[in-house]
Amino acid sequence: MNKLLSIASLAALAIAAPSLAQDTEKPEYPSPNAIVDAAPASDWVKIAPSDLLVMDLAPDAEGNARRVVIQLMPAPFSQGWIRNIRKLAAAHWWDGTSINRVQDNYVVQWGDAGYDNPESGETEQKALPEGLETVPEWQYDLVDPAKEKVIAIHPSEYFSDEIYAGWANFYKGWPIASDTSGGEWPIHCYAAVGVGRNYSPDTGSDAELYTVIGHAPRHLDRNIAVVGRVIEGIEHLSSLPRGKGQLGFYEDASKRVPITSIRLGDALAEKPSPAFEYLDTESAVFAEYADARANRRDPFFITPAGGADICNIPVPVRKVKGE
Amino acid sequence: MNKLLSIASLAALAIAAPSLAQDTEKPEYPSPNAIVDAAPASDWVKIAPSDLLVMDLAPDAEGNARRVVIQLMPAPFSQGWIRNIRKLAAAHWWDGTSINRVQDNYVVQWGDAGYDNPESGETEQKALPEGLETVPEWQYDLVDPAKEKVIAIHPSEYFSDEIYAGWANFYKGWPIASDTSGGEWPIHCYAAVGVGRNYSPDTGSDAELYTVIGHAPRHLDRNIAVVGRVIEGIEHLSSLPRGKGQLGFYEDASKRVPITSIRLGDALAEKPSPAFEYLDTESAVFAEYADARANRRDPFFITPAGGADICNIPVPVRKVKGE
Repeated sequence: MNKLLSIASLAALAIAAPSLAQDTEKPEYPSPNAIVDAAPASDWVKIAPSDLLVMDLAPDAEGNARRVVIQLMPAPFSQGWIRNIRKLAAAHWWDGTSINRVQDNYVVQWGDAGYDNPESGETEQKALPEGLETVPEWQYDLVDPAKEKVIAIHPSEYFSDEIYAGWANFYKGWPIASDTSGGEWPIHCYAAVGVGRNYSPDTGSDAELYTVIGHAPRHLDRNIAVVGRVIEGIEHLSSLPRGKGQLGFYEDASKRVPITSIRLGDALAEKPSPAFEYLDTESAVFAEYADARANRRDPFFITPAGGADICNIPVPVRKVKGE
Repeated sequence: MNKLLSIASLAALAIAAPSLAQDTEKPEYPSPNAIVDAAPASDWVKIAPSDLLVMDLAPDAEGNARRVVIQLMPAPFSQGWIRNIRKLAAAHWWDGTSINRVQDNYVVQWGDAGYDNPESGETEQKALPEGLETVPEWQYDLVDPAKEKVIAIHPSEYFSDEIYAGWANFYKGWPIASDTSGGEWPIHCYAAVGVGRNYSPDTGSDAELYTVIGHAPRHLDRNIAVVGRVIEGIEHLSSLPRGKGQLGFYEDASKRVPITSIRLGDALAEKPSPAFEYLDTESAVFAEYADARANRRDPFFITPAGGADICNIPVPVRKVKGE
């Protein structure tokens, strides 16, 4: 017999079983996943291949390929940073660098770990390509309210309770927050990708990027620029061994995971390019999905939460056939 | 030269560097970690070894031991479940079972994966020890308000913004929430341990436990019993390969991680018993720490968040010398 189903039908299954609910009887309330699955094709928005950053890691110990796909943020957010990222990818700058830091319930970070120069006795960094911008404004006033105002879609009772901001909502498929003084900023949810920096806010070069692998570290909002999010393959980062050094850096250089290449999605040699789409956050289906996430009524659940923080409503993204 | 410091002093370091702040100048505001480090010994509360559940996994591929230590919840929460857990541990019931499910940004789950009985052709489960309670009340009215009322310590502006509850606060070192109708319930923060169940709320046997390895799944609050939290070794669970089956179950049985033994802390053969203590959540130092988590002012931060959700204020726990 099917062992997985057998497990599921016994006590071993637990916590949530939306797709198995159909085995018993048709639920009055569909699960969030079922709502998304029923969305019409017109509610899905294509992500341009040029807005994808594709990171290939060295194969794992069993020889399996490891690809991580990042979606870059749309305008008006963090565009200075993203121009730098495009230049670094075009220069193949990250090829041969590595994942250097894995801190549990926090971040995975990658970039140039430096190398020991035997002549100088110093650890030196790889030279950056020319033409990178120093991004002076890393804070939330990146958005010019007069020019492009973020429109709050589905202002909901859930998000007006935002602890970290005046309000939070979705904009073009991204969770953003505002203090209502005219500025908005992207939110550090699980899988968010940001730009590492030193103490001074303009010291980020984009050469060091990180992604969130734990509970949303919202205290980083407005302190570090969010430039994207992992939409495929985050398990290749989140399941890496944690670093034993300070802040989760790998003390032992042999633990670093080599990065074979990082390219924009439209610069990959392979065709078709990888292709993804996200569920339109202005659609009625998304509103229904968000409501269902905030008030789980599918069969497993007994007491709906009555709300959800915005990071507990991940925007659905799916892979599609490329061209 | 010291490679780690070298990395840290260049652009590779990012996101947060509390301990390195002292290299520049004495910060006006100490980091949350520095506040905790300065707590007097009297602010730390010992955790009884009998309230620890110690899980030893088979060594990893490199032969390293893997131990996960769970602290069980104090009364009045989930005590029926915890009595069952004590019986299962005393019966050595989990020995030889395995970790069967690893779902990214959600949970790791362990227990009996079942075995194929060649005679019946069925997948069968290991028999449970006698005397386990069927816990009828898995919901938040586990707390008898007349008998033992949870006292809200440090009622703070941060937590009154709770999206998921009337309020949230700390009680005897644990994050709890309430809808102000007289009941309180424990919160599913990162590392929380709960009891897997089937659709019916009283189907949990305690034989299947899980822990949270992602953004706090608060929609599980009041739907599944929280019985404890991982206080050491969560990286042995959170860094496991994600399961490729439905809900993150390992489809390939060879991927399951064998559990060598699960014992209460005072039932281990080895002496001294493992020993831990937590920072008293009623202490002034904890209030200072929580405030610093909600308003990061240490050198790296430019814009304090002005609040924090309760799961972003993990209760400090430290290992100490056992007796």
